[in-house]
Amino acid sequence: MVIVHVYVHVKAEEVQAFRDAALENARKSVQEPGIARFDVIQQQDDPDRFILVEVYRSEADIVKHKETQHYKIWRETVAEMMAEPRRGVKFTNVYPSDERWD
Amino acid sequence: MVIVHVYVHVKAEEVQAFRDAALENARKSVQEPGIARFDVIQQQDDPDRFILVEVYRSEADIVKHKETQHYKIWRETVAEMMAEPRRGVKFTNVYPSDERWD
Repeated sequence: MVIVHVYVHVKAEEVQAFRDAALENARKSVQEPGIARFDVIQQQDDPDRFILVEVYRSEADIVKHKETQHYKIWRETVAEMMAEPRRGVKFTNVYPSDERWD
Repeated sequence: MVIVHVYVHVKAEEVQAFRDAALENARKSVQEPGIARFDVIQQQDDPDRFILVEVYRSEADIVKHKETQHYKIWRETVAEMMAEPRRGVKFTNVYPSDERWD
């Protein structure tokens, strides 16, 4: 799997709006066949910070995700909510193995 | 859920030994009733860095995990492998909802 953690820091006044937009995007993203998981989590000691935990079956599936309508809407919707630019980091799974992420 | 990301940076020569120890710990940890997931992922552009993605049903389940034999063995085994101290960050789930993490 290709796992992408997207580190997001939003403006304090945009937290609820960001949650709403991220939820909408996650619900649609998990329906893509190339996506095994699309979690959205909020940091407990700093609720302006979120991570999108995106689990793709392949690199090609990342490209496909970025071509979807819901991704484009999300990107547009959250653009002005950021306190600083988002940062994505890529990982490979050690555990569990590929067949056990669904 | 209470989600803990543990950021780990190991010495380059310890990467394989750390993978082995983390795999053993993860396989046992997912059998705890209080743990919904226990992923181990390795950073693509810096393979000395790992994240343990631990998903607990409650704060009490974190305490219980730290009392297990496999946790104690893991902690002892990896102590000398660290390039710098581990750092844990706690999150709450926005998506999916509690009942959908298994």
